Amino acid sequence: MSKSIHGGNIEELSRKFNLDKEKLIDFSANINPLGINEKVKKTIIAALDNVEKYPDITYHNLKSTISNFEKINYENLVLGNGAAEVIFNLVRAVNPKKVLIPAPTFSEYEEASLSVKSSIEYYYLKEENNWSIDNDILSLINEEIDIVFICNPNNPTGVITKKDILLSIIEKANKTKTIVAIDESFLDFIRDSYKYSLVNLLKEYDNIFIIKSLTKLFAIPGIRIGYGITSNIDIINKIQGISVPWNINTLAEVATITSLDDKDYISKSVKYIEVEKKYLFEELGKLKDINVFNPSVNFIMFKLNKNIDLKYELMKENIIIRSCSNYNGLNENYYRVAVRTRKENEILIKALRKVLKYNI
Amino acid sequence: MSKSIHGGNIEELSRKFNLDKEKLIDFSANINPLGINEKVKKTIIAALDNVEKYPDITYHNLKSTISNFEKINYENLVLGNGAAEVIFNLVRAVNPKKVLIPAPTFSEYEEASLSVKSSIEYYYLKEENNWSIDNDILSLINEEIDIVFICNPNNPTGVITKKDILLSIIEKANKTKTIVAIDESFLDFIRDSYKYSLVNLLKEYDNIFIIKSLTKLFAIPGIRIGYGITSNIDIINKIQGISVPWNINTLAEVATITSLDDKDYISKSVKYIEVEKKYLFEELGKLKDINVFNPSVNFIMFKLNKNIDLKYELMKENIIIRSCSNYNGLNENYYRVAVRTRKENEILIKALRKVLKYNI
Repeated sequence: MSKSIHGGNIEELSRKFNLDKEKLIDFSANINPLGINEKVKKTIIAALDNVEKYPDITYHNLKSTISNFEKINYENLVLGNGAAEVIFNLVRAVNPKKVLIPAPTFSEYEEASLSVKSSIEYYYLKEENNWSIDNDILSLINEEIDIVFICNPNNPTGVITKKDILLSIIEKANKTKTIVAIDESFLDFIRDSYKYSLVNLLKEYDNIFIIKSLTKLFAIPGIRIGYGITSNIDIINKIQGISVPWNINTLAEVATITSLDDKDYISKSVKYIEVEKKYLFEELGKLKDINVFNPSVNFIMFKLNKNIDLKYELMKENIIIRSCSNYNGLNENYYRVAVRTRKENEILIKALRKVLKYNI
Repeated sequence: MSKSIHGGNIEELSRKFNLDKEKLIDFSANINPLGINEKVKKTIIAALDNVEKYPDITYHNLKSTISNFEKINYENLVLGNGAAEVIFNLVRAVNPKKVLIPAPTFSEYEEASLSVKSSIEYYYLKEENNWSIDNDILSLINEEIDIVFICNPNNPTGVITKKDILLSIIEKANKTKTIVAIDESFLDFIRDSYKYSLVNLLKEYDNIFIIKSLTKLFAIPGIRIGYGITSNIDIINKIQGISVPWNINTLAEVATITSLDDKDYISKSVKYIEVEKKYLFEELGKLKDINVFNPSVNFIMFKLNKNIDLKYELMKENIIIRSCSNYNGLNENYYRVAVRTRKENEILIKALRKVLKYNI
């Protein structure tokens, strides 16, 4: 188990601080605020008797559904028990000597790399540069780097990296035999995701490995499903060689199939996030001690210019936010909040005004 | 994913042979014939809204429940997404140069060891010796062997290894710094399991690693839960260092807690298996071309002294059994069947009489 502190640890916090978890609003996990799709619940209930059987070890139906959704070849797909397992299995398969990781970013690229004793080079994102990845990353990609991880859009900064820069990275990495592992787990939250996704480049480049989690968009992080896509059959074979059989739960399998089939839920979610993201961004921007960074998807990072422990203060108001103090490249002044429902977003803003001692 | 052929692959077989999977009776997976506990189903349904949250990354409630069930220290426990992940995580953590594995046995010890490029020495079990592990295994345990795997009772032979031999193995392994990884996944199916379990020896020996799956006893292989127990904190820490976070699904978590709390279901299952195991063993013994080996738990291995593909012939009768042809140390004459309900066991015997062309 990872040693990192993540968002979404309501259970643990409730125990530690003796909070009433039923009352808590969780802004610390980047989950779709529309919540679990009722159709998915029904599918799970209908499939309950199937748990008496082992999952199909080949995951034929699940892999077919995902392949259709992503418009990719079935053979280019590997499944994971959450995106976390996909990341770990990639490093277990490739066994990198050295990886390149932007900072700050999602901590599991580092955790996974450390678990196979890889050394790590960091590309530090800069606030004055709006936390963006620039061409200066290219000079860090060389023959020594086996994998470069890029989270797009990046967690926790919310910054999206444009395709032209990604292309330069892929081209350079192609020459240095470096795998570009790109985590597109949050990309489906935006309308024009195809403009940013590398899925169309898979045929052209065999050094791209796309990581995806489905549980954020479908609000089902408790049931664990993720996948990796690459046209590099050598990597696929290596991953299959080190993977645990039956790694996807039967209920996660049916939930995923139903989720991907429900285009309405997806488009409804995208529209909802668009509106609420704008609302929350603007409202946060009105708070004078807060410096909010432009979000791209369903979470927003901001900097607090006031010396208080905002996470702790908001916990007293039954609100959980993500402190970014344990991200390499950030400190205790940075926080991340998920975009939630209008009502919940209003409660957050009101609570912020209270703990920041503004005239409410 | 493992390349092995396992039992319980109904989906795959149905696709391949165009069978009506609703009509099939599965004797190929060693699952409790009483089926999923209704209380467990209710727990899963009640917990459906919880899948909107990440699982508790510390799995506090689940680990507490298992610790109480096993009467062990919370700190001595690691969880896995099925026993398969426990096995893989053990070898990932220990990174053995060489392992010792009896043959025939459950294939995932070999698969996991190969995934970390370990070499493998086999201890061949002999039919003339009733497939039992004897003291001659001791001479194969030396400083070169990092892990010895023992499945107890052994799958597919059904043979249980007595504690005195296990003790000799542990003592010898203690001297050679070898870990004894003992898979007790089927032990809870018998009334006097404490006579065979090594759990009471954990305090005395830190080279024991107990592997357990819960999904066989509770008839929930679709939802994946397993664990490992050892008093060796160094191994625990190493496993935690290479483990994927959130590896247990929220629904598997609640299902396990409810399952372990329902002592009635467990004792009812043990009694049921006792009666049906005897029935099926005796009925198989009456068939002149079949040589049946004495079972200990919920599955029975037998040898067919007739040149037909019994698995294929029974498939035509909508019955799936496990061919043991792909087990190292066995061949196409050996088969394994799970003990199922009386009605299903009768159907199996009747179908066997038919395909073996006896007077029905």
